[in-house]
Amino acid sequence: MSDQVFAEVSEEALLKIFTLPEAPDSTLGRIEKDLSENLMGFLGEHIVAREKPLHEIETNFAASEVPEQPRYVSDHTEFLLDNLVAHSVHTSSPRFIGHMTSALPYFLLPLAKLMVGLNQNLVKIETSKAFTPLERNLLGMLHNLVYRRESSFYQRWMHSAQHSLGAMCSGGTVANITALWVARNLLLKAAPGFAGIAAEGVAAGLQHYGYKRLTVMVSERGHYSLAKAADILGIGRNNLIGVATDDHNRIRVDKLKEACAEVAADGGKVLAIVGVAGTTETGHIDPLAELAEYAAEIEAHFHVDAAWGGATLMSNQHRQLLAGIEQADSVTIDAHKQMYVPMGAGMVLFKEPGMVRAIEHHAEYVIRHGSKDLGAHTMEGSRPGMAMLVYSAMHVMGRRGYELLIDKSIEKAKQFAALIRQQDDFEVVTDPQLCILTYRFVPKQVKAILPQANAEQIRRLTPHLNAMTRFIQKRQRETGRSFVSRTKLTPAHYFYEPTVVFRVVLANPLTTENMLAEVLQEQREIAEQALGLRGALHTEMRELGLLHRG
Amino acid sequence: MSDQVFAEVSEEALLKIFTLPEAPDSTLGRIEKDLSENLMGFLGEHIVAREKPLHEIETNFAASEVPEQPRYVSDHTEFLLDNLVAHSVHTSSPRFIGHMTSALPYFLLPLAKLMVGLNQNLVKIETSKAFTPLERNLLGMLHNLVYRRESSFYQRWMHSAQHSLGAMCSGGTVANITALWVARNLLLKAAPGFAGIAAEGVAAGLQHYGYKRLTVMVSERGHYSLAKAADILGIGRNNLIGVATDDHNRIRVDKLKEACAEVAADGGKVLAIVGVAGTTETGHIDPLAELAEYAAEIEAHFHVDAAWGGATLMSNQHRQLLAGIEQADSVTIDAHKQMYVPMGAGMVLFKEPGMVRAIEHHAEYVIRHGSKDLGAHTMEGSRPGMAMLVYSAMHVMGRRGYELLIDKSIEKAKQFAALIRQQDDFEVVTDPQLCILTYRFVPKQVKAILPQANAEQIRRLTPHLNAMTRFIQKRQRETGRSFVSRTKLTPAHYFYEPTVVFRVVLANPLTTENMLAEVLQEQREIAEQALGLRGALHTEMRELGLLHRG
Repeated sequence: MSDQVFAEVSEEALLKIFTLPEAPDSTLGRIEKDLSENLMGFLGEHIVAREKPLHEIETNFAASEVPEQPRYVSDHTEFLLDNLVAHSVHTSSPRFIGHMTSALPYFLLPLAKLMVGLNQNLVKIETSKAFTPLERNLLGMLHNLVYRRESSFYQRWMHSAQHSLGAMCSGGTVANITALWVARNLLLKAAPGFAGIAAEGVAAGLQHYGYKRLTVMVSERGHYSLAKAADILGIGRNNLIGVATDDHNRIRVDKLKEACAEVAADGGKVLAIVGVAGTTETGHIDPLAELAEYAAEIEAHFHVDAAWGGATLMSNQHRQLLAGIEQADSVTIDAHKQMYVPMGAGMVLFKEPGMVRAIEHHAEYVIRHGSKDLGAHTMEGSRPGMAMLVYSAMHVMGRRGYELLIDKSIEKAKQFAALIRQQDDFEVVTDPQLCILTYRFVPKQVKAILPQANAEQIRRLTPHLNAMTRFIQKRQRETGRSFVSRTKLTPAHYFYEPTVVFRVVLANPLTTENMLAEVLQEQREIAEQALGLRGALHTEMRELGLLHRG
Repeated sequence: MSDQVFAEVSEEALLKIFTLPEAPDSTLGRIEKDLSENLMGFLGEHIVAREKPLHEIETNFAASEVPEQPRYVSDHTEFLLDNLVAHSVHTSSPRFIGHMTSALPYFLLPLAKLMVGLNQNLVKIETSKAFTPLERNLLGMLHNLVYRRESSFYQRWMHSAQHSLGAMCSGGTVANITALWVARNLLLKAAPGFAGIAAEGVAAGLQHYGYKRLTVMVSERGHYSLAKAADILGIGRNNLIGVATDDHNRIRVDKLKEACAEVAADGGKVLAIVGVAGTTETGHIDPLAELAEYAAEIEAHFHVDAAWGGATLMSNQHRQLLAGIEQADSVTIDAHKQMYVPMGAGMVLFKEPGMVRAIEHHAEYVIRHGSKDLGAHTMEGSRPGMAMLVYSAMHVMGRRGYELLIDKSIEKAKQFAALIRQQDDFEVVTDPQLCILTYRFVPKQVKAILPQANAEQIRRLTPHLNAMTRFIQKRQRETGRSFVSRTKLTPAHYFYEPTVVFRVVLANPLTTENMLAEVLQEQREIAEQALGLRGALHTEMRELGLLHRG
């Protein structure tokens, strides 16, 4: 039998798909074997390199009705291979260094399958049993990584029903929202004559406490999820205040203080100061200790968004970059980023085990009072057992394994920055603090004059350079051999002119220096073909009097 | 080689876990084979039937530090088998009929592994490519299932960058929050002199529009996630108003109207009316058409929480139970419930494609303006490609396959209700409308007199019957042969006395009538052992003069 038969609508056929596995020689059986034995080979073979335009892909996903008739698994699988897998993104390729999704350790694949097969629901013990203590244990280990409390602390709180050291969630966005939700509810808590914001809402809370508004302060490089959080939580995006950054994309504490003083003078209250530990665009880390001190001074919640950088705490060499994080009231970490587990594993950690009571919810049929059900302290309800994958990765790789990954990534980023500096037609825009850096292509003649250019010259040259960076990035992506992403920065040394840059994230342990050199070479070759863009740049240079005929 | 070697911390060893798969004869390799060939057998063999107390399980999850050294995958896997898998919950067992997690079709396991191997991030096209049109297609199909718009509607909107027919999310809770978030932002939208609630926050919005408060109306049987939503969105849990239900756990529209009139008279505004299409506890469906009409009349958003019941739309025989759902402004459906896909697949659908603009977010480096990135219209940021599993299940089973599953489930529930009625020591408390029913054990002598009992007698007898129901449910669960859940209802025919009941969900296609008869028999046997409880009940009966010596 080459396939699981369900091409007729009968109860018998239907029951088969719940009881009979796919045969090893079926299409899906063979795919599974391939995945187990040679994931990279499978992906390399099935993902088409050259990019297909999105509108063409859409034509295969145009039917708007639930299909009436059942279909053979093998037929459907062939469809997926040709139309979905072929045109998916090779996120684990060592030459795809433009996003935060990297290669996965092999052992996580069968474990992920085990997780799906067990299909636990972590909202309550009744549907997750041992997964609940496992998740609480994992949160304890990560709390320990951040806060380094004594072991009696963990013995006391890790498995306590009324407490949680954090909350697992689908990703960093939900983690950030949860952190600010807790902060908001703790600030506008119940008091004589006021049932608390959770019960009465934002408007009643502001009125009771006499605040005109609440604000959240973060650097201009803060993640966009914080704007979502301000919207959802009823604070308003305008009250998420973006503070200027220094030359290294770190929040300027002097500017922060000014902004907070303005909020207070205006009758507002700073709900939270958010420190960024690894900005999404450049990987820079705010001065967390300074922020912690100031947040305490003005009695604001101090949250650290370490969605990207949190894993750095496992490196003895680099963890001091995050010094001060242990003073945070809450911390976001995404395990599906630098902890190398599959998508869907975010978490928020709370300094004090009782803080989650600000968002506690119960119901009659689940998460009853006194139960250890995780659902009492999470934004999400039903949730899969992703904690198992993070827990397993931590045990199989160990802190020292992660340390090696982190250290090598940062080293590789520094080497790449050095390599870029050696080129006469590329320039580093932001140096790596973690394993992220930004750079751009700049034709030789331009590079030579840039350091001396004045504001007007930069203002006129930058759009041309931006167009070229966009062109190269897009063409390289479409060609499908390698991929870097791009973003827009406002470097002080370029008079804050909006500057488009290539962005690379060097977390994939399989990326070699050789591959990085090839990425540059490919970009250079694409740039050479951009005759129109080069011509326009040349004309601009001449008009600016920057070209000396040789 | 029986295992993937990474017991030394070297770069070479580390790279191996990213490049070399587990050997087929390794522990994990063997588990994977078992899962593929015989999932039910694997689960039956490895999940220990008799329940281990939680505090004993916790002792295996007590270490509070990230392990320093790496560990062999096989050693760790053995640990997981003994301490996690063994004490997880057999959610797919046909005798575990107490929760909404059921068996999964076999083909979803290898597909889930493929999904993890591809590790796409659905927040943006750059990291998901073809998964984006696939997800938009799936949302279109489900929109069609609910709203049945013409095919030109889907051609126009399904893949439009500025629109979305819905949002995939981790589960029904996030779906419900998202729906009410959209409703809130549409109500308190921007207007001359007001930048809108998304920008300015709840308090400014209420003030601008002159509302004292916003309320959300739902029956007392509404899901607890709505209370979470009211809290998170800054509305306040007190403003989630629970409306009384009729004898069939459906909202009383007369009471709803009274409550809404009170809100208005008091200067408040009804933000949304929520209809429940499948209450979590009893599976009953509110009169959706009536609710739709009334919501339109008072200009409130009409949301339907069909997390459980949404799949019923695929049954031609039963879809009229949800008549009126096509008038909802938004609808929540959980595919990980009656659509038989693994945990983590919720969604919200929106009637009008432009509604999501009320929650639109952009950033410079992702979800840029004009892109088709799904992240612009979802609460979550990074998300896995779960849509692939739902899409595949719909194609392999087809509408007619789902129809058969739904029809058989409801039929089975009705048969079970009939079987319970035949017993002289059990009684049905709520009849099934979908495949959920509640019942309890009532000793013969009690059952005989219950229909004639007065309020005082019920008030005094109920605590004893509740204690017995709790005892039976707990003991049965601990024994591990079968599992029903329990909840507390307030049946009108028992004078609204809080009544503890067994709750069963008969969605697993592998559950047989025979198994159901055995569940009753086991409960009866447990009841016979509860001598203390029976004695107390007996005494109470005697004191009430309800025992006639024979």
